[in-house]
Amino acid sequence: MLFNKSSFEKLLQMNDYIEAVSMAHKMHALGNIIEPDIVHADAPNGEYHIKTGGILGDKPYYGLKANGGFFNNSVNFQLPNILGVIYLSDASNAYPLAIFESSLISKMRTAAATAVAAKYLAPKSPIKLGIIGYGNQAAAHLESLSCVRQIESVSIAGRNSEKVNEFVEKYNGLYDFEIKVDTIENTCRNSNVLITTTTSKNALVKKEWIKSGTFIGAIGADSPGKNELDIDLVASSKIVGDIKRQIIKVGECQHAIKQGLIKQDDIYAELGELIVGKVDGRTNDSDIFIYDSTGTALQDVACAAYIYEKLKDNKDIKSIDLFS
Amino acid sequence: MLFNKSSFEKLLQMNDYIEAVSMAHKMHALGNIIEPDIVHADAPNGEYHIKTGGILGDKPYYGLKANGGFFNNSVNFQLPNILGVIYLSDASNAYPLAIFESSLISKMRTAAATAVAAKYLAPKSPIKLGIIGYGNQAAAHLESLSCVRQIESVSIAGRNSEKVNEFVEKYNGLYDFEIKVDTIENTCRNSNVLITTTTSKNALVKKEWIKSGTFIGAIGADSPGKNELDIDLVASSKIVGDIKRQIIKVGECQHAIKQGLIKQDDIYAELGELIVGKVDGRTNDSDIFIYDSTGTALQDVACAAYIYEKLKDNKDIKSIDLFS
Repeated sequence: MLFNKSSFEKLLQMNDYIEAVSMAHKMHALGNIIEPDIVHADAPNGEYHIKTGGILGDKPYYGLKANGGFFNNSVNFQLPNILGVIYLSDASNAYPLAIFESSLISKMRTAAATAVAAKYLAPKSPIKLGIIGYGNQAAAHLESLSCVRQIESVSIAGRNSEKVNEFVEKYNGLYDFEIKVDTIENTCRNSNVLITTTTSKNALVKKEWIKSGTFIGAIGADSPGKNELDIDLVASSKIVGDIKRQIIKVGECQHAIKQGLIKQDDIYAELGELIVGKVDGRTNDSDIFIYDSTGTALQDVACAAYIYEKLKDNKDIKSIDLFS
Repeated sequence: MLFNKSSFEKLLQMNDYIEAVSMAHKMHALGNIIEPDIVHADAPNGEYHIKTGGILGDKPYYGLKANGGFFNNSVNFQLPNILGVIYLSDASNAYPLAIFESSLISKMRTAAATAVAAKYLAPKSPIKLGIIGYGNQAAAHLESLSCVRQIESVSIAGRNSEKVNEFVEKYNGLYDFEIKVDTIENTCRNSNVLITTTTSKNALVKKEWIKSGTFIGAIGADSPGKNELDIDLVASSKIVGDIKRQIIKVGECQHAIKQGLIKQDDIYAELGELIVGKVDGRTNDSDIFIYDSTGTALQDVACAAYIYEKLKDNKDIKSIDLFS
């Protein structure tokens, strides 16, 4: 089956992605997976990254995301800069099940994973949400965090004030909380849940701006060089990663690791370990937790499988049998 | 676009695949490629292999083949043991172009590549073709070699005489040459073009059975341990490979390399070097040439691109826009 974007955009909600991503990390913690792997390839005007992996639940699935990052696409071709597909197969016999456009699932699963982390790590007190950045992930995190916690207020900040204002104009009124523009410093100082979603390569968030008990979702850093948080903040916080061996290389904590401020063993937990109860989530009101998000094919495959299972018998979905 | 098997099975001929594969190896020799790469992953009842690569011709393409090898599929699921898809994207912007069922292209491109090699390496005298094996590749090589050379006679041999007889019954009469059953030894002794297409892990072909001037297409060995030819035969012949660094690891010549009988530098040429004229093909009637075939994503991507270009404006092809 081939799912075009509109075929599943309206039929699945953020809560579906939260359920699927939670399952992916649970399976990861239980070892019921086909180990994720990756291929990079340089093209003349961009690069491809193929991320593979499998989830061995009641029904086993294996799949991949084949994305290209071509950062002149929007200018040269009026196309998204990141483009690709997610492929899903039945891991009991390799039978091809489905192909999806990748951007919608990527967006949803990333924000869903932070919401899963927030379930275990966000403070119990009413949520004052701060967001640094104004892109897709800023919007998706408004939605995903709303699914798991009551949000009292939102402040948003970014390096381009025009774009921050556009964001507020677009999203204010869609939720039962107000979204206000503020400086990065004030947004950090006034939040107990802080989500950083920029492409920055220099720390934007200082340690002294973060109060005890805060949960930080560090979304932006997912490749070498990217950086949103002071390394002192990272080194003094409890770090939970999606995949430990990945975050130390390409996540927010790559810099504190490289500087020798922390070691791999200092990583508090992987997300899946919280879900299966192997490691406690928040146990007091003072710990600062950082969820270091780098993304994994396990999340993509779990979401693709969830969508496939939910929609495979839907007669309105366009479908072609590859073997006919 | 999604191409199901029947949409292109009737519309393309072996000559089309020969043209596409020849182009792939030409681009490889010229360096106009995105380097092929591979991911292996073990599943509980089989394994996946994802082969990636790109061809940078007038129009650049990048793609992958995601195949599973599940060797109980036919028994347990009435499915092919090797199953998967080929994905094609536009390498100027990563735009997803097409998805194909993989088995037909895999079969055709493998036999097409041997035919390209035969153009440069087969003897000039009338072709007495010998085939060891009776599967898909045996049949596909009858077709592909017929496209490039006049075949005088065919003898076929294999380890299961019942299946050899079935093969002859099925294919005799479809061509203007007769196909006869013989022993492996006689088939080798009486051929000047010999194609080995088995899954054997022990040499089936002895050096003393092969007369000077023979062209051997060694198709079966494409993973560690597989072996069809005596290492002495390999060590004393001129070896042309599809991809040099691949054949020394997983091709027929892995064994002669491992035993120290030949070194990587002893490989005569890559197929693409013959096509661009960097290395001569056959220059005398006595050399024994072995084409060591291991397969590459460049062949798959070139064929997928060829099919896509030929059929993209065909209104009868089922197609869905992923982004709609």
